[in-house]
Amino acid sequence: MAKTIITLGREYCTGGRYIAKDVARALGIKLYDKELITMAAKNSGLSEEAVAASEKRHTHSLLYSLYTMGNDLPLGDQVFILQSRIIKQLADEGPCVIVGRCGDYVLRDRKDVLRIFVYAPKGWRLAYGKENNMLQAKDEKGIKDEIDKTDRNRASYYNYYTQNRWGDAHNYDLAINATLGHDACVKMILAAAEAKEKAMEG
Amino acid sequence: MAKTIITLGREYCTGGRYIAKDVARALGIKLYDKELITMAAKNSGLSEEAVAASEKRHTHSLLYSLYTMGNDLPLGDQVFILQSRIIKQLADEGPCVIVGRCGDYVLRDRKDVLRIFVYAPKGWRLAYGKENNMLQAKDEKGIKDEIDKTDRNRASYYNYYTQNRWGDAHNYDLAINATLGHDACVKMILAAAEAKEKAMEG
Repeated sequence: MAKTIITLGREYCTGGRYIAKDVARALGIKLYDKELITMAAKNSGLSEEAVAASEKRHTHSLLYSLYTMGNDLPLGDQVFILQSRIIKQLADEGPCVIVGRCGDYVLRDRKDVLRIFVYAPKGWRLAYGKENNMLQAKDEKGIKDEIDKTDRNRASYYNYYTQNRWGDAHNYDLAINATLGHDACVKMILAAAEAKEKAMEG
Repeated sequence: MAKTIITLGREYCTGGRYIAKDVARALGIKLYDKELITMAAKNSGLSEEAVAASEKRHTHSLLYSLYTMGNDLPLGDQVFILQSRIIKQLADEGPCVIVGRCGDYVLRDRKDVLRIFVYAPKGWRLAYGKENNMLQAKDEKGIKDEIDKTDRNRASYYNYYTQNRWGDAHNYDLAINATLGHDACVKMILAAAEAKEKAMEG
């Protein structure tokens, strides 16, 4: 059981991280989120400056940078390449859940990967974020801006590195609207993981 | 139980229609597909010519036509408006599964609608279509063209009438990759329907 590697991309304030946690717990496999992957990259000798650079807003595409800059890649791109290597190593070590960092794209050549995307309408995420104290902003206007900005950053990060479009169903095996509820999301991902394993065996 | 109305959009040769059928059977509710909705429209006095016009390739958007043509709308657009009215009536009558015809968009103002999208990579759909004798073309080149053309037609139909983008996860509550298998797709939709009802009650 639980031979599948699960990648989970999620919009800000959907509770995707908690869904991922409960899926990993139910399957008895490890969970790696952005912080853990970044930490691993730091242990490989990355500077704080490089990590900060990797979080900046992206334009063009990685392919464009590779083409114009050759071996002299911007720090952020070097971090992505290092993180991708770490994600591949983690996947080689065995079944796990990988949250964010374009895991679906990084592991695109593996057949044993179940790719999940969790999203929700903005109004729902705003209420969810407030209820669960996930937001740094305090006033209504600041909260809206925070969600919009994080959405834009995640989309530009994903589009820059993958050449795919953030939120397009075709990038995933299962795209779930978080409004269906935490438990239902966990249940559907577990059913999908079971089906994926069955499909691989068959 | 089964108070939810389910709309299901699907790519060509994903088996979405059969998934819809089994979901309707499991919930004991009616299934309406494109043919049935078109038949209902014909019974309302539509000509063959009008129905044929509604299937043509779309450019611009319905809003553009409404703006430029006013009350003198092209036949295809009149059919869409009539079909939309029929879909709304069917939904008013009670829980059912509605396949295609932008059902998710037509019923966007109802809270009791579970919106599903079924897709799959082109190679998989090609094999599925051949295996299940779903394709009219006989040779490899013709089959590829048939799938490409149907994809383009469905996307342009959806984008024209809804102003949304066909295949964008945000239009749906659940977007499922058919490669997970027929039974898993049915199971996940049933779980989502249950969750939707629970979320509506709560």
